[in-house]
Amino acid sequence: MRVLVYGGCGGLGRAVVQHFKSAGYNVTSVDIGENPEADSNVKVNLADDWVNQEKNVVQSVLDVLVGSKLEAVINVAGGWAGGNTQDPDWVKNADLMWKQSVWSSAIAATIASKCLKEGGLLVLPGAAPATSGTPGMMGYGMAKAAVHQLVKSLGGQGSGLPDGSCTLGILPVTLDTPMNRLVGKDQGFPMVGSCTLGILSVTLDTPMNRKFMPNADFSTWTPLSEVAGTLEKWSKNLERPATGSLVSMHTQSNSTYLRLEN
Amino acid sequence: MRVLVYGGCGGLGRAVVQHFKSAGYNVTSVDIGENPEADSNVKVNLADDWVNQEKNVVQSVLDVLVGSKLEAVINVAGGWAGGNTQDPDWVKNADLMWKQSVWSSAIAATIASKCLKEGGLLVLPGAAPATSGTPGMMGYGMAKAAVHQLVKSLGGQGSGLPDGSCTLGILPVTLDTPMNRLVGKDQGFPMVGSCTLGILSVTLDTPMNRKFMPNADFSTWTPLSEVAGTLEKWSKNLERPATGSLVSMHTQSNSTYLRLEN
Repeated sequence: MRVLVYGGCGGLGRAVVQHFKSAGYNVTSVDIGENPEADSNVKVNLADDWVNQEKNVVQSVLDVLVGSKLEAVINVAGGWAGGNTQDPDWVKNADLMWKQSVWSSAIAATIASKCLKEGGLLVLPGAAPATSGTPGMMGYGMAKAAVHQLVKSLGGQGSGLPDGSCTLGILPVTLDTPMNRLVGKDQGFPMVGSCTLGILSVTLDTPMNRKFMPNADFSTWTPLSEVAGTLEKWSKNLERPATGSLVSMHTQSNSTYLRLEN
Repeated sequence: MRVLVYGGCGGLGRAVVQHFKSAGYNVTSVDIGENPEADSNVKVNLADDWVNQEKNVVQSVLDVLVGSKLEAVINVAGGWAGGNTQDPDWVKNADLMWKQSVWSSAIAATIASKCLKEGGLLVLPGAAPATSGTPGMMGYGMAKAAVHQLVKSLGGQGSGLPDGSCTLGILPVTLDTPMNRLVGKDQGFPMVGSCTLGILSVTLDTPMNRKFMPNADFSTWTPLSEVAGTLEKWSKNLERPATGSLVSMHTQSNSTYLRLEN
């Protein structure tokens, strides 16, 4: 059984790669770096524009798979940035958010159209706050809203995905990642999204997590293992919501539950 | 009284410029070309990236206004392209859709934050179909969904717009533009959005409209004059929906009505 993890070097991505490896899957990681735990790695070239990034990543994935099909394509790439119209960098940040969340999701969709088996799973990275307005993080909200709408398109008739495949968006409220612990403690801005931006998370690891671990109560943050376990169930066609669903993940008192947002 | 029309050389843009001129406004058009009916023109350089396009357009607008404030910033730029995951050009088209609808909307938002008067109006170009999935036009749907979410963000507290300002999205179902008459007749694909893409509509004019005018019944297509008249009313703070609203425009038997979508 084979899965592909897009953003496999991020905080959530590494947890997902590890989980699927432990469960006996052959795992391909796509990211700007290599994840040594993955069976194979495809590297994204940040100098490529969107069209060339799609072309090069898809070709490399086809080269790795040599005709095998995937049970699941799971995109957990993405980043976070704030900013409203008064922020001189808001467009620069919106551009970055678009590249991280939407470019990766579009390329994951193309990979799914070519490499997913019938009845396979495609998961894209949404964010619960972007289901309404996000005045303090305008670029982030736009990018995630675009991903949400892409999930709905891919779940519709005529999206070009293999028969019976299922596309879901995961909308974490706050994930318990090293990055979130870091910025949640020190800067106090709203923690949303998966924060698995490859370019940052390569520099984040457990020592940093330990160093910056505050004594706060994290019982409302969703553990990465919960997300990874849910993704594996869905890959096996267990407890799968309907294709095109946006699934938010909520954690209270260390207990995580899912809710459909559309 | 001053207004700025972003996309002032497109099919809808020219109608809006004309309408506001007739109503006695001083009109600035922003587009890749110049609209000779406008009082002043700011040209967009397509070679610029998003950040530089924002910087250059905003500076040129500030130069034109020399401190005057705007009653309204109206963005009617945008284009249309189809394509699902099987279409080899879908990412290329998604990139184009993003640049046309989202870059222009973000820059219009920055202009509004700097140049709109208190209680002023900002209008961005949405599309009714993008309120759900659009499997046959994936890039278009993502871009318009991002604009819809931006409207909600700009309508929220803390977006950085002047006090009391109102941001609305217009979501036409089908506009009666030369471009729509052309492609609606010959290609039969779903007609959505404003189709006021500057780069195309510069080459479209009344002779072409006449040439390709089919004998079909256009009584369900929204006349540009209806849109322009509605925008003028909103500019005068008449019949304005709540800020952050998405307003779809429907035409039946040559009669147009509005509906709130959120």
